[in-house]
Formats: sequence, C-alpha cells, structure tokens
Amino acid sequence: MTTTSESKVMAEPRISSIDGKLAEEFAVPSHAEEVKEKMAAFARHHDAAGRRVVLITSGGTKVPLESRTVRFLDNFSSGRRGASSAEYFIDSGYAVIFLHRHRSLYPYTRMFSTINMLDALKFRGGEGASSNSGEVVVNQQVLPNIAKALKRYQEVKEGKLLLPIEFSTLSEYLHLLKAAAQALSTIGSKAMFYLAAAVSDFYIPASEMPEHKIQSSNGPLQLSMNMVPKILSPLVKDWAPQAFVISFKLETDATILLDKARRALDTYRHQAVVANVLDSRRGYVVVVTRDTQAELMVTEEDVKNEVEIEERIVSNLTSAHKKFITQQAG
Amino acid sequence: MTTTSESKVMAEPRISSIDGKLAEEFAVPSHAEEVKEKMAAFARHHDAAGRRVVLITSGGTKVPLESRTVRFLDNFSSGRRGASSAEYFIDSGYAVIFLHRHRSLYPYTRMFSTINMLDALKFRGGEGASSNSGEVVVNQQVLPNIAKALKRYQEVKEGKLLLPIEFSTLSEYLHLLKAAAQALSTIGSKAMFYLAAAVSDFYIPASEMPEHKIQSSNGPLQLSMNMVPKILSPLVKDWAPQAFVISFKLETDATILLDKARRALDTYRHQAVVANVLDSRRGYVVVVTRDTQAELMVTEEDVKNEVEIEERIVSNLTSAHKKFITQQAG
Repeated sequence: MTTTSESKVMAEPRISSIDGKLAEEFAVPSHAEEVKEKMAAFARHHDAAGRRVVLITSGGTKVPLESRTVRFLDNFSSGRRGASSAEYFIDSGYAVIFLHRHRSLYPYTRMFSTINMLDALKFRGGEGASSNSGEVVVNQQVLPNIAKALKRYQEVKEGKLLLPIEFSTLSEYLHLLKAAAQALSTIGSKAMFYLAAAVSDFYIPASEMPEHKIQSSNGPLQLSMNMVPKILSPLVKDWAPQAFVISFKLETDATILLDKARRALDTYRHQAVVANVLDSRRGYVVVVTRDTQAELMVTEEDVKNEVEIEERIVSNLTSAHKKFITQQAG
Repeated sequence: MTTTSESKVMAEPRISSIDGKLAEEFAVPSHAEEVKEKMAAFARHHDAAGRRVVLITSGGTKVPLESRTVRFLDNFSSGRRGASSAEYFIDSGYAVIFLHRHRSLYPYTRMFSTINMLDALKFRGGEGASSNSGEVVVNQQVLPNIAKALKRYQEVKEGKLLLPIEFSTLSEYLHLLKAAAQALSTIGSKAMFYLAAAVSDFYIPASEMPEHKIQSSNGPLQLSMNMVPKILSPLVKDWAPQAFVISFKLETDATILLDKARRALDTYRHQAVVANVLDSRRGYVVVVTRDTQAELMVTEEDVKNEVEIEERIVSNLTSAHKKFITQQAG
C-alpha cells in the first residue's frame, strides 16, 4: 500500500448533490456573502414598504477554457430583454435586483447602446460657437428621449428601486443566483425570479482546466465539456420554495419549443416558462404555465408606437404573481 | 459503382491554399466589396495628402458553434490596446482604419467604458432646479476629461482621420482583413498593419456546424475544432507585400513568449512582433524585430501622470516605419 492510495482512501466521498457540485467545481466569488447581505437588506426594506421584489437575471455567461483565461465560451445575449423588463417591473411597482452580465444592456441606458455617445454631445452654443465655454450638452436631435430617460433614471435611483449586481463567468452567476435566492427567501411568495439570462449548459471543471493559454501549435482542439448542474431544481425546492419562479426557454427550432417548455415545468415544478424562438424573440413569446398557454406578440403597428413585448410579458406575469400571492396566503 | 462514389470522384479537389480555405470555409460578409472600396478611397485620399495609413485590428473574434448561433467561442479582449493606439497614431500624423469588434472599446469614447452614462448627465441648472428646462448637460465632476475628448473627437471626425469598420465573427474578421490588405496595397510601404485583435486559433467549419442550438439533453459536449488558417502568411506574401506589418503575441506563460515571437518572425517574415503577457500587458511589452528587442514599460509614476504604454509602442513603431519607408525607397 502506497501513500498515494492511502490518501485516496482518505479523500472525501464524491458529492453528488447540485449544491455540493456548486461548491466543489465552481469557484465562489469573494464578494458573494457581502452581495447576499445587500440583497437581503434590499428585499426587507422594500417588503416593509409594501413592494414586491423581482430578481431579474440578464445577459450571457462566460465559460473559461483556461484558468488564466484567454479563451471562453459565451452565449448570445445582448441583455435587452432583461434590461427593458426591469423598467416595466419598476413601472408596475416592483423593486428590482438586476443580476446582469458585465457590460450587457442596462435599464434606461440601453437607449444609447447603438450610438457613439460622443456623436450625441456638443459644446454649448451650437456649431458656430467657440468651444472655449467648455460646457458639454446632449444634442437632443440625436437622442430625442434623453430627458425622459434621465428623469426616470434619477427617480429610480432616488427611490433605490434598482439594485444592480454584475457577473461575468458562469461560476459567478451560479453562486450569486444562489445567494439571491437565499436572500429573497425571507419575503416568501412576494419574491419573483425572472430568469432571463442565457446560461451555458456546458462547462469545463476547474480540475480539468489547463492553467495556460492552449497552444495552437499542438494541433486541432478537442474540447470535452461537462453539463452544468440544473440550478433551477434546488432554487425551487430548497433555496426559495415559496417564490414565484419564471424561467426562459430559447430555441432556434420552433417545433421543439413548447414541448421543451412543458417538460421544464414538469421537471422543476416552477410557475411559468417564457418560451421564445431566436429569430422572432422580439415580436412573439408564449408564456406557458401548468394549465395555461398565453401567446403574446407585438405588431408592426405596436413597434411604430414604441410598444415593446417586454411590457406585455411583465403585465402577464405581474397579474399571475398577484394571484399566486393570494392563493399562497389563502 | 454508386452515384455516391461517382459524385465523390466528380467533387472538386481539396483546396489547400489559405486563400482557398478562406473562400471555402468562411462565409464572405455581404458588404466586403463595399468596405474594400471605402478603405481604398480612404488610403488614396490620405496618401495624396502626405499621411501614412495604419490599419488597426482590435478586440476578439466570435466563433459560432451553431449556424443559427446561440453559443460561440470568444477571445478575451476589451479592445483597449487598439482603441488607445488609434488615438496615438492619429496624434502622430497617421490616418487610421479601425477594424474592431462590434461593441469593443472605441477611440475617445473608451473613457466612458467604466461608467454609466446617465450617472454623468444632469439637467441644466443643477440639483435644486426643476428639470422642466429639459436641457441635459454633462456633469464634468464625473467626467473631468470630457471637453478635451469631445474636442479631439470632433477634430478627428472633421479631418476624416478615422475610418471605423466593425466585425463580430472570425469569418468577418478574416475577409475584412484581406479586403483591407488589398485596399492598402496601392500605397505600398506607407501602409502599416497593427494587428492587435485577439483572433481565435480554432473554429468549426460551416460544413460541420449543426444548424440548431445544441441540445444539452444529449449529454456532455464533445467539440472538435479545426485550426484557423494563418492569415499573416498570405497578407505578408501576397496581399500587401510592401507594407510594414506588426503582429501581437499574447501569452499567459512568460517563459515561452519571446521564443514564440521570434518563431513568428521567422515564419511570416514580417517586421515586428509586440510580445506581451496577459497579467502585465498594460505595463510592459517587448517589441521584437529580426535584429532588435526593445523593452517598453510604464512605471507607477507614469500611470499617475496618465501615460499609457500604447503611447510608447506607437512611438517606437512609427519611428521604425519611417526608417522602413526610407529603406524601401532607397
């Protein structure tokens, strides 16, 4: 018997639960506890003020292929749905924890996402004037909605209605979502989880990850990726069992979408799935619950009037959440 | 003999050149020709005005795993080096074609990258005033350098010194770089290529890519990725043989860095490699040429004085470019 095999015998038994896997294979971000306490305080404060609280996740997760990361796997997501939904939830009286990918679209600022900010600024006095006054103003011909957005942004900030939390990697996302679920468990059914982030299904465990940049001189790359634990399961069962939980299902193939949504509801026993197809996601979604199926859409006419589909999704879900709270209380 | 084997016999011979591979396995962006003509006109115009022209590539490339892309492989790169270098090249009298990843850092606007723009705006009249005037101004306590940046941005725009071209995918990058090389070949040695983009070494050929989102229910993911053709080779040999070409080498392991830089120079016969290590890349680089090796760095004192290492890199390379032009002419 060698010392090696002895130490194998002494090793911890393989932890098979999702919670164990999370602790074992995904690095805990150093600020997880601090963020959890912040979220708990936020939830307590707004619950006391009679507000419901929604945790929105938004944007894609980064999955490193190397521990000193040069390369990573990512999921397509601008974060538009999460950012616009946050605005509509706030308009509906909710306080919002916005758990989003670093640099993804952000509520209110999302309107600048397609322009270069310097193209929207000018020196006060207009084009002919000397720039020596030095005062820089927004050109409202370039950004016609800026005053409205700024006013609303300042009100929301003043009312502390939006708590932004950032993630980049899958590990950060998973641990911060767990922290959020635990933080919100104290307000029971008055918490909603609106899980719109595009989360990777695959990852490379820290133990199998090379430290350094993978060398291309070694030839073609063979990657073997494990499946990410389905965190929805402990979230619904253990961490926030009384909450109103919405997951999102994005597919490119419309024919399998509703079936996959129904199967998710059967598996995780949460309240609703927002199902959407990549190409039509900004015009059409289906909100699927155990007993119902609601098609929501915006027409071209709606788009002209600046109606966004997120307004309809949020309206559908806040009504359902209200009923859910009443049922849980009764 | 079956029709299948007959059609195999009839199939085109396997194209082995890099150019052929590019045409065969990487989709040409629909605007490639239009962009090429734009770049050629830009180069002719500035060459006639006595300016040298640099093509800067910046940011990471996106490598789709599915043809209707939900997942992709990416390279870590904010685009900071390319964006700041562009400013210093313009200050040195160059005209700049800025071939950058969509949403990566951009010259002059890069100073906003860490703040939420709405936190830097206020209604004219200050905090106590009513917001009804509606004029929105920049709070220069939040953005102390905005007037300077805006002034410079407007001068550069006025002088048409910066031509921005965007890419997202590896395919777009490769084809647009080829177009740029061909467009700049007309100005010979007065063109510089400053290839700072973080380009993937691996990809999945279109023919092997699944159309739809990979299903996680199929179990762990096995990815087999091909090696990206080394585009530096035809760029130096065929597309822009008279140009001054700089490549970048980023490693996480400092011990292999200089050796890899030297090997790249031997292989591609271009003019210089800027070698850097991930962790120290903002404070230290080595500019390696066939005969020389120049260490460039910024100290903590420099950082306090807002000196950036890109200023030193650009200064080193513009001098070398000047000598190169003289040698080529002589």
